[in-house]
Amino acid sequence: MWEGRRVEELPTPAFTVDLDVAKRNAQRMRERCQALGVALRPHMKTHKTLEGGRLMTGGTQRRIVVSTLAEARFFANGGFDDILYAYPLPFDKVEDCAALAEKLNAFQVMVDGPQALDRLKERPLRTGRAWKVWLKIDCENGRAGLKPSDPAALQLAKAIAEGATELAGIYAHCGNSYGCHGVSEIQSVARATTARTLEFMEKLQGAGLPCPVAGIGSTPSCSHPVPEMGKLGELHPGNYIFYDVQQMMIGSCQLGDVAVRVLTRVIGHYPHRNQLLVDCGWTGLSLHSLGQLPTGYALVEGHPDLKLVGMTQEHGKIEPITGKLDFPKFPLGSLLALVPYHACATAAMHPLFFIHSGGRVVETWKPVRGW
Amino acid sequence: MWEGRRVEELPTPAFTVDLDVAKRNAQRMRERCQALGVALRPHMKTHKTLEGGRLMTGGTQRRIVVSTLAEARFFANGGFDDILYAYPLPFDKVEDCAALAEKLNAFQVMVDGPQALDRLKERPLRTGRAWKVWLKIDCENGRAGLKPSDPAALQLAKAIAEGATELAGIYAHCGNSYGCHGVSEIQSVARATTARTLEFMEKLQGAGLPCPVAGIGSTPSCSHPVPEMGKLGELHPGNYIFYDVQQMMIGSCQLGDVAVRVLTRVIGHYPHRNQLLVDCGWTGLSLHSLGQLPTGYALVEGHPDLKLVGMTQEHGKIEPITGKLDFPKFPLGSLLALVPYHACATAAMHPLFFIHSGGRVVETWKPVRGW
Repeated sequence: MWEGRRVEELPTPAFTVDLDVAKRNAQRMRERCQALGVALRPHMKTHKTLEGGRLMTGGTQRRIVVSTLAEARFFANGGFDDILYAYPLPFDKVEDCAALAEKLNAFQVMVDGPQALDRLKERPLRTGRAWKVWLKIDCENGRAGLKPSDPAALQLAKAIAEGATELAGIYAHCGNSYGCHGVSEIQSVARATTARTLEFMEKLQGAGLPCPVAGIGSTPSCSHPVPEMGKLGELHPGNYIFYDVQQMMIGSCQLGDVAVRVLTRVIGHYPHRNQLLVDCGWTGLSLHSLGQLPTGYALVEGHPDLKLVGMTQEHGKIEPITGKLDFPKFPLGSLLALVPYHACATAAMHPLFFIHSGGRVVETWKPVRGW
Repeated sequence: MWEGRRVEELPTPAFTVDLDVAKRNAQRMRERCQALGVALRPHMKTHKTLEGGRLMTGGTQRRIVVSTLAEARFFANGGFDDILYAYPLPFDKVEDCAALAEKLNAFQVMVDGPQALDRLKERPLRTGRAWKVWLKIDCENGRAGLKPSDPAALQLAKAIAEGATELAGIYAHCGNSYGCHGVSEIQSVARATTARTLEFMEKLQGAGLPCPVAGIGSTPSCSHPVPEMGKLGELHPGNYIFYDVQQMMIGSCQLGDVAVRVLTRVIGHYPHRNQLLVDCGWTGLSLHSLGQLPTGYALVEGHPDLKLVGMTQEHGKIEPITGKLDFPKFPLGSLLALVPYHACATAAMHPLFFIHSGGRVVETWKPVRGW
């Protein structure tokens, strides 16, 4: 329906993806991993689309990470395999996980405690194969995972390696890289996470528990990898396919690397308060910047002097950072492009992505949602 | 698939609606409007479901407000009529609006400037009927609309009443009631908005421009109406079908009136940082409270001592407001119910609502999304 149309014709608000930029982001991450000598296991959570998954895997549709069961099912049904459900195993979803593990060649789950492991042991796979289980370790990120220095981590690894489960990998998410500014801070987090993960791998080896692979990830650390990451088996970044203003501010990318925009139209002029309204509210962008950018909730592309100062459900308020708004420059109905602060959050608000190249829509992608 | 199951069996995160509470909220608002002698034109933007629309209209499926074209189409296809698209007419959607106006008995649009009106005049309806056009006025809310004291408002009303368009109503949204605390502040906003709207209606009358109806709305003002609102034709609140923590804090409702919860399960214990993890992140709740409630991003029902301190895409971090967390009270896999800060924003994150009564799921509702 939209293929071949110019992006300027799209109904707004519209979530657009520059296919050439997204392809280049995907290609560069694959090259970075090849140069390091590690496998890339891209995370699907940012786009949640089959097409995005094919770009990120270079067409193999193998070796991906997901964060919800809905994503796992969606990608499995779409022909993907070797899917790691990198989430602390939720007890209500064990049976669904078993169904996927019995259907796919490699559906892998993650645990960070003995009780979750018990649930798996209580439900051996009907194929007779062992559950492929990753152990989550927490390398100073402070979310899920056991600290690798905690004796419980080694103990859990031992328990995983017995019976109806096998130790398939060690997983660390360096989400603390999101607090960084600049390459040197990012690399310091990458180095620390890598060192702790490799130490734990050696500890496993020493305890007679060989583990085939360790993976770490986050878009900042994988955009600026340190050489010792080559000793890991896998990297699992996700956001890099799109990038966003947050990643720019962290230092992961430049504006030219951000593949996504929310197109919006001017729907009102209010000279008495020096503002215009656009047809994008928080349903089209999310509130994720909390409005704290110098330009408010997003960047207005090509207009560094404008600030998106407020958003309600379907309205955005824009005003100049200083001075008087030049209203004739922004006629009613004219188009503005917002560069999102957090692409994962903005993508999650859109039932359809408009993919363009050379100014024309080339395809549309439908993301999965829910759990 | 889910009907008849106990809510405790639902996969999490799950958006649940207590049908009895929602029915009572709907019933009370209808009674309030009857007592005032005004019509209720409920807003669909909070739930965006046919079933919610039927509850709010008392089964008539007539006289509703929507905020997106996608909602307008969805409700029209679902058998609703007399639909007011209460949004500054977007220039890219005139043709779609015309299709709805030509199909329905009453599809009404809104303008707040002469250029939008011109677009309607340039596209007369093929039915030969006039476009039903509402004029949006801004009574100190500071979003869309002309100030009723601005001579341009009267001038626009005149222009609407000519030719291929007719003046169908005057619309004001008292969104400034969201800054209120307590009934007396809410009623002061309601009184001011009503007074300004009625003054403008008199001015129209004086200019020989009789306007059939004026409507104002917001859940706070319509939950605590002032008698003079009886002189208006319509009220158009929306959120009250669900209510939420924000409405509790404004003073629109009590906790017992909040019909919605996000059910979530405990997925991790982290005693070293006195926290547990739950399987609800911002994809399940939204970030709308900005974490600034005394209890963080939401209320944890039945546990006023707990605080939802942080959320990432699929994880929520909970800790006690003070003291040590009693971990055995919250075993892994156990259920917690989050009372959302902003029901509109939380509902927008869920592809399916689980509707329950007496502890059991009685139906599921599928909201429309997009634009």
